[in-house]
Amino acid sequence: MLEQFRVNLEEAEIVHGDALGQTVAHIFEKLGVPAEDAKLGADVLVLADLRGVDTHGVSNMLKSYITGFQSGQINPRPDWKVVRESPSTATIDSDRGLGTIITPKAMDIAIEKAKNVGLGMVTIGNARHLGMASYHSMMALEHDMIGICMTSCPPSVVPTYGAEPRLGTNPIAIAVPAKNEPPFVFDAATSTVAGNKIGIARRLGSKLEPGWLADAEGNPIMEEIDAPDSYTLLPLGSTRELGSHKGYGLSCMVDILAGLLTGMGYGAVPGRPNFGHYVAAYSIDAFTPVDEFKEQMDEWLQMMKSTKPAPGHERVLVAGQPEAEVEAVRRKEGIPFHPEVLEYIRDTCAELSVTCLV
Amino acid sequence: MLEQFRVNLEEAEIVHGDALGQTVAHIFEKLGVPAEDAKLGADVLVLADLRGVDTHGVSNMLKSYITGFQSGQINPRPDWKVVRESPSTATIDSDRGLGTIITPKAMDIAIEKAKNVGLGMVTIGNARHLGMASYHSMMALEHDMIGICMTSCPPSVVPTYGAEPRLGTNPIAIAVPAKNEPPFVFDAATSTVAGNKIGIARRLGSKLEPGWLADAEGNPIMEEIDAPDSYTLLPLGSTRELGSHKGYGLSCMVDILAGLLTGMGYGAVPGRPNFGHYVAAYSIDAFTPVDEFKEQMDEWLQMMKSTKPAPGHERVLVAGQPEAEVEAVRRKEGIPFHPEVLEYIRDTCAELSVTCLV
Repeated sequence: MLEQFRVNLEEAEIVHGDALGQTVAHIFEKLGVPAEDAKLGADVLVLADLRGVDTHGVSNMLKSYITGFQSGQINPRPDWKVVRESPSTATIDSDRGLGTIITPKAMDIAIEKAKNVGLGMVTIGNARHLGMASYHSMMALEHDMIGICMTSCPPSVVPTYGAEPRLGTNPIAIAVPAKNEPPFVFDAATSTVAGNKIGIARRLGSKLEPGWLADAEGNPIMEEIDAPDSYTLLPLGSTRELGSHKGYGLSCMVDILAGLLTGMGYGAVPGRPNFGHYVAAYSIDAFTPVDEFKEQMDEWLQMMKSTKPAPGHERVLVAGQPEAEVEAVRRKEGIPFHPEVLEYIRDTCAELSVTCLV
Repeated sequence: MLEQFRVNLEEAEIVHGDALGQTVAHIFEKLGVPAEDAKLGADVLVLADLRGVDTHGVSNMLKSYITGFQSGQINPRPDWKVVRESPSTATIDSDRGLGTIITPKAMDIAIEKAKNVGLGMVTIGNARHLGMASYHSMMALEHDMIGICMTSCPPSVVPTYGAEPRLGTNPIAIAVPAKNEPPFVFDAATSTVAGNKIGIARRLGSKLEPGWLADAEGNPIMEEIDAPDSYTLLPLGSTRELGSHKGYGLSCMVDILAGLLTGMGYGAVPGRPNFGHYVAAYSIDAFTPVDEFKEQMDEWLQMMKSTKPAPGHERVLVAGQPEAEVEAVRRKEGIPFHPEVLEYIRDTCAELSVTCLV
């Protein structure tokens, strides 16, 4: 369902996902990340590109990860550990490890616990950016489980009626398996838009929609504007009348579950540049027979997609469907990139003596 | 955080919560509900009134529950049972029992499981209306747990770009304990507004805000209008540009967890007039030391409330705070009702030979 600020396809260069993944993994290795971890972190980035979630793919995130490793903000060889545990839960101290690498391991733990007792839930503190949240929730699918992922991010969003950012974009992702239909995969910031979209709009010179940003005093900006250099986002709902207290409340929920419940801080803790994460796996079999559930998910997804569309719209989409459609094309035909992105990757490869995009 | 369509206090009659609860319980008993269950069901309704959540209190819900018992739609003596179970989960067939009565029992089961293994989660199918969802999530508070409640409701909300309702108002409630501050209690429909508000606006002759309803073709109505007799709601976000795909996706999440995961249907199943529910309890102690967590919740709540307000606003609120403030007043001074509401209750008492409001 993610709004795409697509690269101009006429000037785009196409790169195959496998070549991209290998290159990114090799870059991570050169920055001190163990080989297996490097592969995993690259896989998270490339799946975002493959599914058309460009905001969380290589073009938008790789540079900040590289800078983070180089500056020491991100620990390439974290001594992460489970600091507290119960049959269905665990809390991980991530030791400043990259979230794209630690979160899949946390999800493995959640899935294992769900196999044993029905549910598994893991919070991760002292963490760094986890990439596309739905990557982690989608890990549950092959186990016939429902997967959840949330992240408590540094503040960029004002509370309703507030003039100062107190919350991050704090996304919620959920993945649910179906039988023959593509899975339901929802992944969205609890702000009106993800922060990355402002940066992309600035780069591409596109306008921002009304209701995305607050002005310096906290007033919702309800007209179309150019992307500013610095910005404060509005919670989903934009204004109190349209329900921004709901987006604000959901964002608080994420800050509590993925932040406070780690015991290692929350989005607005002063001086905290880091993130807190939350993953969960629910065994479908613990609630209801798996086959019947997946058949009913097919029926439900078809029902949603066959909704009569409103005038001016061709069809009604369901979360995960557009991404699955993009993924089918990009796995076959490759991923289109703005030449500047590939130039950055090639420069980085040259600098680090890494074989590039072959 | 709930927008209040308040009764005109000059013409209001005041009733004490205890008297109201006893009267409602006696009415339920006369309709065939066992005494203990009647008391529980009444408690859920009255807490909504005490906390100022008038949309889910006696004035707006009692009549439909009475009609439901009288028509046989709601079973006053359900043979509800756990049909599937794991150490952390259970699935309940509610046998058409009233959700206000069965859901607290399901939450007891979830809490017990969370005591044993860290998490508890219960889905409830073949169910009826559960009242104010936050009642059930708040049951976790005294156990130092986080409580969650969601409900899959009959369709009244269009998907983004859709012309037909496919989803209910599908609320999400979460309650989190603090140390000295009132708990964080979020409870909101995933539509722009709860359906009950349209009925209340109609009764009071107040206008509806832009962005609440879709027209007959599915187009979002973006101007102020009178409350119509029949209506279709928009998902939180109102329009695609403002992020309605996020409200739509969250509503789908609720329909899956509280509907499909029961194995007993979902909101739009044809001919289904009923509801599916979902409750969960997370033991804080399973993740992090309880005392430290509750102290940090105090700090976090104070931080949120002390946010500098935007021009024209006195203060920034946090979910659960306005309700706690109203509750403190109403427990002491009583609950104000429109005289018509009390007339209905008095007529019902006379009809059923129940002692009324003393």
